[in-house]
Amino acid sequence: MRFVVIGGDAAGMSAASRAKRNLGDWDVTVFEQGFDVSYSACGMPYNIADPVRDINDLVVRQARVFREKQGIDLKTGHCVERIDRAMKNVTGITRDGNQFSIPYDKLLIATGASPVVPDLPGFDLKGVMTLKSLDDGRRIKEIIRTRKVKKTVIIGMGYIALEMCEAFRAVGIDVSVVKPRRGFIPWMAPTLSKVVQDEVVKNGIKLYLGHEIKRIEETGDNLLRVVCDDIVLDCQMVLVAIGVKPNSRLAGDSGLKLGVADAISVERDMQTSDNDIYAAGDCADSYHVVTGKKTWIPLALRANRAGWAVADNLAGQNIRLDGVAGTAVFKVFELQVARTGLSLEEAKKEGFDPIEAVIESRSRAHAHPGSTTIYVQIVGDRKSGRLLGAQLVGAEGVAHRINAVAVALHQKMTVESFSQCDLAYAPPFSPVWDPTVTAANQLFKMM
Amino acid sequence: MRFVVIGGDAAGMSAASRAKRNLGDWDVTVFEQGFDVSYSACGMPYNIADPVRDINDLVVRQARVFREKQGIDLKTGHCVERIDRAMKNVTGITRDGNQFSIPYDKLLIATGASPVVPDLPGFDLKGVMTLKSLDDGRRIKEIIRTRKVKKTVIIGMGYIALEMCEAFRAVGIDVSVVKPRRGFIPWMAPTLSKVVQDEVVKNGIKLYLGHEIKRIEETGDNLLRVVCDDIVLDCQMVLVAIGVKPNSRLAGDSGLKLGVADAISVERDMQTSDNDIYAAGDCADSYHVVTGKKTWIPLALRANRAGWAVADNLAGQNIRLDGVAGTAVFKVFELQVARTGLSLEEAKKEGFDPIEAVIESRSRAHAHPGSTTIYVQIVGDRKSGRLLGAQLVGAEGVAHRINAVAVALHQKMTVESFSQCDLAYAPPFSPVWDPTVTAANQLFKMM
Repeated sequence: MRFVVIGGDAAGMSAASRAKRNLGDWDVTVFEQGFDVSYSACGMPYNIADPVRDINDLVVRQARVFREKQGIDLKTGHCVERIDRAMKNVTGITRDGNQFSIPYDKLLIATGASPVVPDLPGFDLKGVMTLKSLDDGRRIKEIIRTRKVKKTVIIGMGYIALEMCEAFRAVGIDVSVVKPRRGFIPWMAPTLSKVVQDEVVKNGIKLYLGHEIKRIEETGDNLLRVVCDDIVLDCQMVLVAIGVKPNSRLAGDSGLKLGVADAISVERDMQTSDNDIYAAGDCADSYHVVTGKKTWIPLALRANRAGWAVADNLAGQNIRLDGVAGTAVFKVFELQVARTGLSLEEAKKEGFDPIEAVIESRSRAHAHPGSTTIYVQIVGDRKSGRLLGAQLVGAEGVAHRINAVAVALHQKMTVESFSQCDLAYAPPFSPVWDPTVTAANQLFKMM
Repeated sequence: MRFVVIGGDAAGMSAASRAKRNLGDWDVTVFEQGFDVSYSACGMPYNIADPVRDINDLVVRQARVFREKQGIDLKTGHCVERIDRAMKNVTGITRDGNQFSIPYDKLLIATGASPVVPDLPGFDLKGVMTLKSLDDGRRIKEIIRTRKVKKTVIIGMGYIALEMCEAFRAVGIDVSVVKPRRGFIPWMAPTLSKVVQDEVVKNGIKLYLGHEIKRIEETGDNLLRVVCDDIVLDCQMVLVAIGVKPNSRLAGDSGLKLGVADAISVERDMQTSDNDIYAAGDCADSYHVVTGKKTWIPLALRANRAGWAVADNLAGQNIRLDGVAGTAVFKVFELQVARTGLSLEEAKKEGFDPIEAVIESRSRAHAHPGSTTIYVQIVGDRKSGRLLGAQLVGAEGVAHRINAVAVALHQKMTVESFSQCDLAYAPPFSPVWDPTVTAANQLFKMM
């Protein structure tokens, strides 16, 4: 039996490794169009922040380890171009221009996602960057070095844009952020968004919110200009960070069902609409544990988890994944910012009757030195009493606190039940009432 | 209507304040035998560690605020000696020797707990201390100053003993810890206990484990000697920290039912065996969310929560508390140590068929600077698949990670379900797989 995997990053290599462990006598072949496999993409901003560190530090496991130690037939520089579901084979072309073709018994599509780049003039100029693959990271480090970049413009304000603000400042680069929408972080509760915005501004980032981007121009040797409807921003490098889209064209062309946001539609066992084909990682959709509906939230943990699930299901284990809660955390200079579940707006759109509480609490006990403010927004449903989501911002004690709420969402707990949880207290780490519980207490009174 | 509260600390003052808010026209009277109310007892080790800080910094709300702003009839220096349930009144004596008597409609017993002191010679000597009340903290700070303490012996190795090791070292005091049992922290998984022990020893604490204490002697002016069966330890101060016992004698004498560990037996609504009498805080028992049985785990959060529940139930709200998961965290020099639920031994005693996984993970992502080891022990039940408890030790990222497991215990989740939770990931804060989830994955494979 042969298991073929298309894509050699988190989901693909997790599945391949585990399949080889589960099913030692199967042939496992992975096609990766690039030359990097199994690397920490999320670590790139922190690597870019340190010119001395090699970007290859982010590689978790070398290709030769997969090949020599694990017995996986890992083919890098191989771009799969077609899946023939009737014949059960895949065909493609190598970087050297050679055609290849291989039959499969079971196939995994783990083709990931790609940065969205607007279809506007000048976004293909040299110096206009995105950040998704390790090669993107390499190119950004190289251009910073070779152009001696002093000024950059970031288009967009997602997780990556925020992390890259810090990374660029760390290497002495002046940063302007421009985006068409006036809201700083649209999904975030305004009180919390303002705290993050203040932190960004305090660290010297120039924000241009509510400016429609028209084009990028080259104004000289290594000089770029971002032209908006009402302003222009000059720089030596542009980072486009307005989001990602699933790499689902290959799957779509082969007739597989696509779902939310054009991601490949998969069931809880990671099967696509073809019983012999799985999809996992950023190219596939998943269930949302709060709504029970399909969603597309491409993050690292679910990619790894889905890769494992595919390998376990190949081995007959019948693993069915709960889905995602949309839990995320990121660092913005000295702040930790975290969310899980639905925002107030998202909850409205999903048909809930949501209500939020926004509170300020402390990271440590009354009178304990070093205590800082923690801001919590918590959302519940008036009709069912259910907890729907939370957001936290603070200088410490945010990153892991969100996990308690995430578990509660998996369990569809009510706000009242969550408010009863026995969470940890000691003066150096928390007030007696954990900030998430204080928020739940407050929300419960309002419901 | 009059609500009388015996005891002016966490549970008592929480109940009194909230009752006054809920039921503005009720008379609320609190009798506190000492002169301190509403203070952060858990903050005392950190206050003692800083000679410059006033112990009164730990007072959360001054007595006069309760009296003048909240309209609570707060009587300090009043020791209640008798509850007459037939007459529905309480009688007692003031510090000045005056008798008092007051009728109640509803009564709350919130008399807390007291340090256990062995019935051995010399434990009543000056310089032999315990640490529970703010007065205890005051006395310890005073004796450190007046005796210029250079050497102390701690008897016992619970949370307070561990925290006080650090506090005494912070003020340059040489610390020896002695206890009869050979195990360092008996409830902790040996691998984790060893990590904590190494940290304590690295910080200069001298451990004498497995020595039966016989007596304490005075060997000179301000000089004490702890005499064991086989060694003697000389010092200027002894801290007895072998545990606490509930202050339930008053309740027991009045015929109220006592339960686990002689704590006052209460139902989920905090009622005692007398419908007009509630008990809350360290003097009362509670349900354990894992076993469903009564337990006695005296910690601050449940005291506050129970106080509120009493006040809400007085107002007719029918609040019934889930109970405790036994969640606790404490700092041991540079380590964070946390637990929730049952240890392996406790799980065996409770009739489960427990199995544990002990893993090492990291506090941050692969290749992220500053990453440190996190040790996780996780316990599950082979029969039901349920998650039963967890313990964590590490230099960072432990204190709040335990809360995700605590929520899972409240929900009686299986190890498998917990392993599916969508927890937060970003390189500065976590590996892709949160250490608690890695431990759950490992345990699930073993079950």
